Order: sequence, then structure tokens, then C-alpha cells
Amino acid sequence: MSNTFNEAATSPPSRVAGLSALEARFGGRFSRGEAIRAQHANIVSWHPVQPPDAVVFPESVAEVSEIVRTCAAHRIPIVPFGTGSSLEAGCNAPDGGVSVDMGRMNAVLAVHEEDMDCVVQAGVTRKQLNAHLRDLGLFFPVDPGADASLGGMASTRASGTAAVRYGTMKDNVLALTVVMPDGSVRRTGTRARKSSAGYDITRLMVGAEGTLGIICELTLKLHGIPPAISAAICSFPDLRSACDAVIMAARYGIPLARVELLDDVQVRACNAHSHLGLAERPTLFLEFHGSDAGVREQATAFGEIVTECGGGDFDWAENAEERNRLWQARHDVYWACLELRPGSKFIATDVCVPISRLADAMVETKRDIEETGLVAPIVGHVGDGNFHVSVMGMVEDAGEMARIKAFIDRLNARAIAMDGTCTGEHGIGQGKQDFLLREHGDNVLTMRAVKAALDPLGIMNPGKIFAPA
Amino acid sequence: MSNTFNEAATSPPSRVAGLSALEARFGGRFSRGEAIRAQHANIVSWHPVQPPDAVVFPESVAEVSEIVRTCAAHRIPIVPFGTGSSLEAGCNAPDGGVSVDMGRMNAVLAVHEEDMDCVVQAGVTRKQLNAHLRDLGLFFPVDPGADASLGGMASTRASGTAAVRYGTMKDNVLALTVVMPDGSVRRTGTRARKSSAGYDITRLMVGAEGTLGIICELTLKLHGIPPAISAAICSFPDLRSACDAVIMAARYGIPLARVELLDDVQVRACNAHSHLGLAERPTLFLEFHGSDAGVREQATAFGEIVTECGGGDFDWAENAEERNRLWQARHDVYWACLELRPGSKFIATDVCVPISRLADAMVETKRDIEETGLVAPIVGHVGDGNFHVSVMGMVEDAGEMARIKAFIDRLNARAIAMDGTCTGEHGIGQGKQDFLLREHGDNVLTMRAVKAALDPLGIMNPGKIFAPA
Repeated sequence: MSNTFNEAATSPPSRVAGLSALEARFGGRFSRGEAIRAQHANIVSWHPVQPPDAVVFPESVAEVSEIVRTCAAHRIPIVPFGTGSSLEAGCNAPDGGVSVDMGRMNAVLAVHEEDMDCVVQAGVTRKQLNAHLRDLGLFFPVDPGADASLGGMASTRASGTAAVRYGTMKDNVLALTVVMPDGSVRRTGTRARKSSAGYDITRLMVGAEGTLGIICELTLKLHGIPPAISAAICSFPDLRSACDAVIMAARYGIPLARVELLDDVQVRACNAHSHLGLAERPTLFLEFHGSDAGVREQATAFGEIVTECGGGDFDWAENAEERNRLWQARHDVYWACLELRPGSKFIATDVCVPISRLADAMVETKRDIEETGLVAPIVGHVGDGNFHVSVMGMVEDAGEMARIKAFIDRLNARAIAMDGTCTGEHGIGQGKQDFLLREHGDNVLTMRAVKAALDPLGIMNPGKIFAPA
Repeated sequence: MSNTFNEAATSPPSRVAGLSALEARFGGRFSRGEAIRAQHANIVSWHPVQPPDAVVFPESVAEVSEIVRTCAAHRIPIVPFGTGSSLEAGCNAPDGGVSVDMGRMNAVLAVHEEDMDCVVQAGVTRKQLNAHLRDLGLFFPVDPGADASLGGMASTRASGTAAVRYGTMKDNVLALTVVMPDGSVRRTGTRARKSSAGYDITRLMVGAEGTLGIICELTLKLHGIPPAISAAICSFPDLRSACDAVIMAARYGIPLARVELLDDVQVRACNAHSHLGLAERPTLFLEFHGSDAGVREQATAFGEIVTECGGGDFDWAENAEERNRLWQARHDVYWACLELRPGSKFIATDVCVPISRLADAMVETKRDIEETGLVAPIVGHVGDGNFHVSVMGMVEDAGEMARIKAFIDRLNARAIAMDGTCTGEHGIGQGKQDFLLREHGDNVLTMRAVKAALDPLGIMNPGKIFAPA
């Protein structure tokens, strides 16, 4: 690992000079404007907004490398930026520095139809990629809701509604081109579907939240758009019976493409927002992918399981328009939640537990919500055991925020005690560093050793994942 | 990362004293016997045999930790040992030291039926695990052929015939308990199906070939035994049309559970060994998993593709006995190859390319085999683009071995030039260190930095993956 910097230029650190050098080099693609800086920080979640000193807009891997070399020489913090949809303030710049906005690196570089893979620049968003692929009958399945950049999705190991069938970013990235913290450019893999050639640096970079380098290009697995897709909604008397149905489906090998559970409060919020008239009970939203016959078989088999578990009120849809109607409520959860308590902020949580403990985790959490007196609907990617409590909080009310933080603490502790995780898909960012320690214990020392080895200057997205040393 | 050793005890290194300490501590579970040492080295492949100084047989994670602490204090190389089925001499001890035989740590610690996961000690073999699971209707799908230990399979990122459907060890390990090079015990994950909590140390350890620590326990994903399984064999006029059929199947979303391609030479060898009477043409061995109707639908759809690609000579089997009869030839490839040229050694190769290049890679390689004058059948896990040329070589013949090494060099260069890998599943070990460099370039510097950070003394399986510094 070569980390050879010009010591004369860096001792003492001269951030001002480094920023000026970048400004001179990038001209109109470098900005210190207040509005632009504010947009390049935490913009969607309840965390404080900590803007960078400046924002730069590279257009090539070589430019990213140049930016990183300059920042390394001047010890300037670097914060990679995709679309800013991080829920744990991954884009904040607590120590200032430069936000590297990858938005102009938004080209689909290659699609290999026969291999069902593609190569994209990191700023390509998932919807952009899927629009590009549609005519080829291919799609990229990872769907975190937001139209995030693929570089950002890789960085947080994103997943979402279709992960139960198609996996997470961990499973769908074949290789990366990364600019390392010393500015060197590294390709972490090949287009081979599998390899045993050395350490899995690809998977090390996926989920590293930009703390080990800047992901510039991604080689991604694609999937064929299934010939048939059908959707369904059905409701259950309680959370446990809904979870039981999902467990049985997995056990019987029914390859559910999406399976989302909304609790009664979430259904009520969606009814109000989307004028749906659904029964306000725990409700599963499902999607089946396959051949015509395969989808019918899956749906029939799942219908039998639902009946066995005491569920009902089925609503089915096979064509795209009908599916969209059914799923609209799920897609609008964010807006529905905000309407549930005007003036509140959306405080996301993201635990994931072994599916056998999911009902316990949800039921205990629901009781906790009621006892704490929170407005907090629940929606879960239940096929993976992952669920989100959306706490609608008045962030100016210190007393309420203290109660909310204590609730979140209990929620994460509960998941960890069940051999689960404090984050299924959002990442650690600034918000979950204590929980990372509780979940991983001394394994965090291994992570820190890797961080220190690859980013000895500590300039890559400082203050994320790990509490400042 | 704490790597605090007793400097007094280690300067100068006193390997003799360290070995004596282990002998005093482990008594009958420590051996310096020549036969035992010879069994704990490369035992299956053409690489030289380099035995350790001693072998120790721990029975618990605590004992492994104690062994590693002792070895670290005395700078004694540590070579983790599973069943010794490594094809790239991963078990060799080029610098001597202690082979840590995990064979006594062979307990299935827990099976969680509802979660479809299990926790096993590293010495459990895959067949042992599947025997344990059978009555529960569950199975562990990764099948590299040999009845390897699960710790060893994780260490080489093993895969095999069913990876096209169920993934490799990378995809089927949820968490590990690892003894790190300083003796500390770390758990790398939880039983949650997915997590975004920090760096993916699990995937860093999978494929690290024991160079970053000793895998002691594994939490593994399980799968439901499918209600229906059917198998088929069909032959093709040439390699390209067989590959085309597999590409089309993937494109149409037919979830082939196994798909193996044998070239004409391999079929001839299998005919001779297993008395099969198959047409000596490129032949696909297939397995379909699903519901009764699903398996029939898959088989019908694949049959149409085969016809379109000019294949035929179908032989189908739905019951277990018939399936075994069909697949026996595939399973006996190793023995069939040895019979093909009595007195020769089996020299394994393991390239993997994007599937669009598979036919090119195989056809060019076949021409190279013929021009070089080698006896070298080909068998491929073609759904992943992975194929093995089994070069049957007279290892005492220096001239022949030089020709074989040059052939292997061209084979790996060809795969790497096609954006593929020099090893789909065997690992780097001692045999592919040059190819790792050619494939990964400076990304190997990242790997080396991680190695130096986690194993600063360089005691974990030295001489593997990386050429000695």
C-alpha cells in the first residue's frame, strides 16, 4: 500500500490551499456556495445538517483520483455524495472538507445482454438504469424506495422490497472501480460470476459507506424481467399470523418476489393518504414473479397458507395498472406517515432479526410504542426479517426526543438480543455508531484495523461508522 | 487492533520452545509423527508436499485461541487444516509450523428450522451436515464434489455444481466465529438475513484461505429440499451450441439447479470408467428443482431450447435412483480422468469467464490442448462460466511439465483477457499467485494492506495467496 504524500505540502496541513487548488483546477465545477453546500449534507433525515466546505463535481475516474490526491496532500476530509438519500446522515461533513458529487458520472458504460450484467458510473440512479434496460427485457432488482445512485446504494449495502428474492447490493455487485484514499485507482474484480481469487475487496467496499474509498464504477448483475408478475394484498388478525404465513412460504420454497407487512397504524395512515379503504389490520403486500403457470402456482400455494394462518380479504392483480394501484399505498408510506402527524419529522429505524423472532420483535416493539406514547407506524420487508418503525417526532421537543431516543435504544437492543442487527439496509452513518459496537463488539476492532490500513490519514468520510477516535 | 505480544519471549523467536509448550498443553492431541505430518500437507494435487513441524487437534474455540496465542508469542506459522482437499496446496506448510486440524470440532451446534439456518463447528463436512438435516427437509447446497469441511469450504470460497442456483460459500455464510492472528475471538455477524452494520468482515474471511485467522464456527443459510427433482443428460454437436443453450436458459429465467458440460474427451473417459455408452460428444448434465409442475415446466422449456440449439439424445430421470445413475458419470470424473492415462497425476485448472465468452474460451482451449498434445478432458459448471481442464500429467517428466505449465499459463491469461478469473472456486493457494497479480493488478496491494493490518506477524498460513514478500 503506497501512501506517499508530499510532506512539505502537508505539514502543517493547509486546507485553505488545498481548496484553492481544487477551485483553480475545477472552476465552475467547484462550489463554495451556501445553498449548494447545504444540499450536500444530511437532507432527508432528522440528523443535524453539517455541510462541507465545498462541493466538487468530477466527470471521470481520473478526476476523482485527482481530487482525492489533492485532498490527501492537504489532509482535507472527503465525503462522497450520490443523491443524498442516506437516512443515517452518511453525506454529512462533520469536519467540513469536500463533498464529491458523483451526479455527473451518470453514464451506463456497457450492457452485456448475454452475460446479464452491466457497467455503470456511480452516479447512475436505479430508475435511470432500469429505464435504460427496459427494452432489453432486463432489470436491476435492488429497490430501496428512493431513486438513489447505484454508488450510494453499494456504499450502504442497500436492499429494499425485492431483496427477499433477488438479494441486496452485496449480492448484485460483481466488481467495482474504486479510487482509494491515496488516490490510486483499483478494480476489485472481473465480470466472472464467481471467483476465489484473493480477498473479496468488492464486498469490503460494499457497505463501507465511503470510508475506504470512492466507488466510481460498478459492474452489476442483471435479471430477466419475468414473463408474468402478479400482486396481492391480504390482511391478518394480528402481526404474528402474518409473520407465520411468511415463514411457511419460505419453508415451502415459494419464491416471493416482494413481501411487505404494514401494521394497523401504517394501514390507517395509508388509507388516509391514498383513500384506500383497506381493513385497518396487519396487511401483507405481495408480488409474485415467474412464468404464467409459475405465478399462478405460487399464488395458489400462498393463498392456502394464508387461509391456514387465519388471513383473508384477498385482493389480487395481474396487470401492471392494477398492481400499481395495490402497491401505491406501500410506495406512499413516507408521505402517509408525515401526514399522520403534521409538523413531525420522519425518524427512521431499521432493525432486522431472524425471521423466527420477527413476530416477537414486532409485537414487543408495538407494545413499547404504545407504552411510550409514540406515533410510529411499522412497515417491514418481512421476508428478510427487516422492519422499520417510522417514529414521527417533533424534533424541537427535547423531552419527546429523549423518549424517542430511549425507544430506539430499546428497539435496537431488542433486535441485537435476538441475534439480529441494528440496521438491515440503512447503514451506520452518524446515527448508529453505539449500536454497531453493541452488535459487533470486538469485531469493530477488525473493522478499525482495516480502516487504519487503507485510510491511514483518516480523510475518507470521517465521523461515519466509527465514533471519532 | 491489539497485537501485544511478550517481546521477551519472542526475541529471538523460539519455535522449539513454542512447540514444546503446545506439546505439554495438548499431550496426545499434539503430534510430531512423520505420517501425521505428511497427511497434513498437500495430499491431493500435484504440488510438492510440505509438511508442518507438528499437528494439533483442538476441541474448542478457546483451545484454538490458546494455540494461536502460543504460536504468535513464538512466531510459529499456523496452517489451518480441514480435510486436506485443497487443490492449490492450501494446507502446505512451506515454512513449517503447526497445522491446526479442525477435525475434532465437528459438532452441528444448532439448527434453526424456521429461520432456515444452522450453526456448525468448522470441522463439520458438508455431507455430515446434510445427513444431519435430511429429516428436517432442509439441505446445505454448496457442493464442491469432495466431502470438504465447511470451514475449509468457506476459506476457499468454494462452490461447485449447484452454485448456479444456490450461490457459493460467499452467498451462504451468514456469520463466522474466527480466531484472529493475535488469538482474539471475533464473531463477524449475526443470524439476521442481511445487515448494513459496518464492514463485511464475514465476506473478508470467506476466501481468505486461512491467511487472516482460523474459522472456528459458521452460521450457514439452509434451503428447503425441493418437492421435486429431475435430471437429464443431452448431447450437442459442439461446445458452442451447448453453451448457447445454457445462455438462453439463463436469459429465459429457467432456474437450472445444476448444469455441467463435459467435452467429448471427458465423456469418453466417463464411458470407459462407468460403462455408460453415451455418445462421445459435448454433453450437458442437468438437474431441475421445484414443485412437480415447476420442474416439468422447466424441463419442457429447456427441452425446446436444446432442440433450437441442435442438441438431442435426451435421457430423463425423475426418481432418485435414476438421477444417481445419470449423474454417476459426472461424480466419477476424477477417477475416470486418472484411468485415462495410467500413472499420470491430476493437474486441476479452474478458470471462470463471462458466459458470453465461455464457448470461445472452451474452443480456444480445446485447440490449445490438441496443439500442445495433452491428455486433458474438460468439465464445466457452465451456468457460472466456470470450467476445469483436468490435465493428466506425468509429473516426473520435466519437459512435459514445462509444456503443461505453459499451457496453464495460456489458459489463465486467456480467461483474464476475457474479463474472467484464474480461479472460480479452488483458490490461489501456492499455485496461482502470479495469476492473482495478473488478474487483480494493484488491487493486490489492497489485499496485502489488509493482510498486514490483521496479521502483522505474518504467521497465518504464510506463503499462500501472496508470494513471500
